[in-house]
Amino acid sequence: MTEAVSGPAIILVRPQLSENIGTAARAMLNNGLTDLRLVAPRPDWLSDRAIAAASGADRVVLGAKIFDTTAEAVADLNRVWATTARNRFMVKPVDTPKSAAQAMRSLDADGQKFGVMFGPERTGLENDDVALADTVVTVPLNPDYSSLNLAQCVLLVAYEWYQAAAPTLPERHMTKGAEPPATKEKLQHFFDHLERELDECGFLRIADKRPVMVRNIRNLFQRAHLTGQEVQTLHGIVHELVTYRHRKGKSHNSED
Amino acid sequence: MTEAVSGPAIILVRPQLSENIGTAARAMLNNGLTDLRLVAPRPDWLSDRAIAAASGADRVVLGAKIFDTTAEAVADLNRVWATTARNRFMVKPVDTPKSAAQAMRSLDADGQKFGVMFGPERTGLENDDVALADTVVTVPLNPDYSSLNLAQCVLLVAYEWYQAAAPTLPERHMTKGAEPPATKEKLQHFFDHLERELDECGFLRIADKRPVMVRNIRNLFQRAHLTGQEVQTLHGIVHELVTYRHRKGKSHNSED
Repeated sequence: MTEAVSGPAIILVRPQLSENIGTAARAMLNNGLTDLRLVAPRPDWLSDRAIAAASGADRVVLGAKIFDTTAEAVADLNRVWATTARNRFMVKPVDTPKSAAQAMRSLDADGQKFGVMFGPERTGLENDDVALADTVVTVPLNPDYSSLNLAQCVLLVAYEWYQAAAPTLPERHMTKGAEPPATKEKLQHFFDHLERELDECGFLRIADKRPVMVRNIRNLFQRAHLTGQEVQTLHGIVHELVTYRHRKGKSHNSED
Repeated sequence: MTEAVSGPAIILVRPQLSENIGTAARAMLNNGLTDLRLVAPRPDWLSDRAIAAASGADRVVLGAKIFDTTAEAVADLNRVWATTARNRFMVKPVDTPKSAAQAMRSLDADGQKFGVMFGPERTGLENDDVALADTVVTVPLNPDYSSLNLAQCVLLVAYEWYQAAAPTLPERHMTKGAEPPATKEKLQHFFDHLERELDECGFLRIADKRPVMVRNIRNLFQRAHLTGQEVQTLHGIVHELVTYRHRKGKSHNSED
């Protein structure tokens, strides 16, 4: 495995459902995280349901560290976030998952250890747990329906951590393995071919409209970022259409 | 409900598990989306499991539109994205959920309709489904473990849509409802009080170190962004410690 060993510890405080532990582990590994900590889980937490839900991320589940108290679970960390949906009326800075991830990247670069706490499914963290954290993290969601499933909340925090340092993708790129776009020379040959045929068939016969029409046609094909193979295909299409027209023309003539 | 009626249609193509439909609906409503479309779901898709997993977002499940084919499900849309983890070796632009969300916001402002397709749990979209899309969307994840649960994938796409227009939060803000930070005057009174006592007890007795020590102590308390109430509490703490020292000193003396 090549994923980084850095990143936040994910601390599930009194999780109630085994499958949520598994789904949280899966969301962690999706984003390169492996340090799972459970505070006072149910005695039967390590069930088949947890392993099934982990769906291949079972080593994260099996590697989970168990603690009796939240204080013990965060003892080795330099910075702790507490996820809460409700306002706790405590004086504590609030991060979004995105701003928390940015802060975590700074701490990581500085060699510090840090983690994020998540409360039990129905009730969330207790105020005494939240008081152990430096910062609250709240996901900005639809105010009319903001209750997140435990594993979904873990996913968003882990996702923002990973995105904060994911190898920068260009905003839009083509699928990998595809041929690169054709050279402009190949494209120009196609334009020459097409326009020759369009001149011949009379499509471009109105002289003062011809320049605009040619530009529009060229723009249309430019926009498609054609590969060399696709340019060949278009040559073939134009050729076949012309040949068919000629064939049809001939047969039409012969029928006359 | 005040959530916007705009946003992407979420198109689940041949979903196999009812609970994933419910969890996807929940992730949609968390992010203000309600247009759920199902292509050829199993006959028993609308099960108790779907409603239980929706956890309050059942109106999204109950409002789902059912289609026989993917082509029918996207017929009214101007732009379609296809989520895929695997490289399909098709020449098609690739978005991340984030760059797709930015494009969607532009389309939305332009009054266009758009949607995102998600394939069956184990197999993903078929190439013929992908060919119906303008653009592929792939979540940048741990390359060693990038398989996302269906509902988790819906969540990330919906989340980025919502975040792309979420009311801009300051990068860090304090929990709402809390008292604002104390005025600097109140803070200064506390510093005066504290330093007077520290001078008296001898903590600041080394003259050439005093300025640095005072600055360090002030910085420490500045960093806490104390409220007025908290400043009062600190006054009380200093007062009590001093009084106790005096009391202890007295009792100590009397015992001598």
